[in-house]
Amino acid sequence: MLQVVILGFGNIGSNLCYTLHKATGVSVIQLFNRSDIALPDALQSIPFTSEISEIKEADIYIIAIPDDAIADFSSTLPFNDKMVVHTSGSLPMQALDGKNKKGVFYPLQTFTKDKKVNFNEIPICIEAEEKADLQLLETLGKRISNHVAQISSEDRKTLHLAAVFVNNFVNYMYHISEDILKENNLDFELLKPLIAETANKIRTLSPQQAQTGPAKRNDVKTIENHLHLLKDSPYKKVYEQMTEAIKKQYLK
Amino acid sequence: MLQVVILGFGNIGSNLCYTLHKATGVSVIQLFNRSDIALPDALQSIPFTSEISEIKEADIYIIAIPDDAIADFSSTLPFNDKMVVHTSGSLPMQALDGKNKKGVFYPLQTFTKDKKVNFNEIPICIEAEEKADLQLLETLGKRISNHVAQISSEDRKTLHLAAVFVNNFVNYMYHISEDILKENNLDFELLKPLIAETANKIRTLSPQQAQTGPAKRNDVKTIENHLHLLKDSPYKKVYEQMTEAIKKQYLK
Repeated sequence: MLQVVILGFGNIGSNLCYTLHKATGVSVIQLFNRSDIALPDALQSIPFTSEISEIKEADIYIIAIPDDAIADFSSTLPFNDKMVVHTSGSLPMQALDGKNKKGVFYPLQTFTKDKKVNFNEIPICIEAEEKADLQLLETLGKRISNHVAQISSEDRKTLHLAAVFVNNFVNYMYHISEDILKENNLDFELLKPLIAETANKIRTLSPQQAQTGPAKRNDVKTIENHLHLLKDSPYKKVYEQMTEAIKKQYLK
Repeated sequence: MLQVVILGFGNIGSNLCYTLHKATGVSVIQLFNRSDIALPDALQSIPFTSEISEIKEADIYIIAIPDDAIADFSSTLPFNDKMVVHTSGSLPMQALDGKNKKGVFYPLQTFTKDKKVNFNEIPICIEAEEKADLQLLETLGKRISNHVAQISSEDRKTLHLAAVFVNNFVNYMYHISEDILKENNLDFELLKPLIAETANKIRTLSPQQAQTGPAKRNDVKTIENHLHLLKDSPYKKVYEQMTEAIKKQYLK
C-alpha cells in the first residue's frame, strides 16, 4: 500500500485527493493545507492538518500549491530523504529543496475545484533523479491513469506552453464569444454544440485538416463584415491578429 | 413527405444530404453539383445532376455553395415562386434572387466532408419572409434537429462572428500547439485529454469561471519563461496579445 500525503487543497490538490483516495493500492494518509478547510463528505476519513510540524511519515509527498511558493515550502518540510514531488507544469524539478528526494508528478489537465475530473486518460508526466524513485512515481501514476510518461523538466515546459494555447487561450476565445453574444442578447447555449464538435474533431483530424472559416478561405467580404460588427469592440484586435496569422499560415 | 433538392455537395451540402436522406418525412429527390461527383454508397439512390436546367420540382431548394457564389447562382435557377434557402452564417437572406421565395436554413456547426456529424443537437437557424414559409422550414428543421430557432439575418451575423472565435480561432490554437510540440518532438496526443476537458467544462461552467492559467493569475515568471521558449517563433505575438487581453479582462 503506497502511503501518500497531499500538501495543498487547491484545484489540483483537491482533484488528486479525490482520485487517490478512491484508488486501490494507495492510501492518502494525510492532507495538509495552510489554512483550515471544510473537508467534503467523501474525504472526511482523511486526517487533516494545517501544521507543518504535524506532517506524518509517508512514501510520497505531493506538493500542490502555487508555483511561486513551492521552493520555499519544500525547504520548510520537517523531514529529510523522503520522496517529495511537485505538480507544476512550468517549474523545473530542481526548484525543490535538496534535503529530500526530488520528483515531479504533473497531471496534464485543467482542474477547477467545482468539477471533478476522471484521471483515467490524463497523461501523468513524471520525473525523478533516481531510477527507483521514478519507478515509485510510475507505480503511483498507474494507480489512477492509463497514461504515465517520463518527461524531462525541459519537455514539460514546452508541454505546458502548448497547453496554455489549447486551454487558457481557447477558453478565452469562449469568453470573447459569450461576451459578443451577450451584448446582442443572444444565448451562448446556441454555440455549445459547435464548441463540442470543434474539440471532438481533433480526435480524428489534424488541426490543419480541421481548419475552416473566412480567414483560411481569405473570404474578404465576410472578414470585412466581421470587423465592421466589431467596430468599437476591444476584441477587434484579437480578430485581426488571428485572421492575419491564419492567412499567413494557410495562404502561402 | 417534404421534397428537398440539395444544391451543392461541399462540407455542408454533403452533411445535410446524409442527414436529410435518413430523416423520416423527408425525401431528398435530387442532388445538384456543378461538377460531377462520385456519390458515396449510402447516397447512391439519390438522383444526381450537374445541369441546372435539369433541376426537378420540389418543396424546398437548399443552396449549399460558397457565399460568394450564392447570389449569382440563385438568379440562374430555372424556376420561380419556389422556396429557396441558403445555408450561410454570414450572408443576409436578401442576397437570394427575388424571383423565388427567400429563406435561410443555417445549421450552426462546423462541417468537414470526412467527418459525419449528428444533427440532433445542432441549432438550425431559420429565416423566411412569409409565415407559411417559416413554418415549412421549421418542419424541415425539426425532422433532423431538436433545436430549430428563428433568427434574423442581423443576429445570424453576430452568431457567425462568435462562432469564428470558438471554432476557427480555437482550432488555430490547436494548430499552434501541435506545431510547438512537433518542433520539440513531443506528441500532440498528450494534449488531447486537455482539449476535450477544456471544451467539456463549458457545458457546466461559464468561460469566466473556467478561466485559469498564468495570464489570469498574472504569473510573471511563467509568462517570461514561455516568451523565452517562443523566442524566435511566429507564435510569440499571439502569446503576447492573448496574455495582455486576458490580463486586461481579469486583473481589473
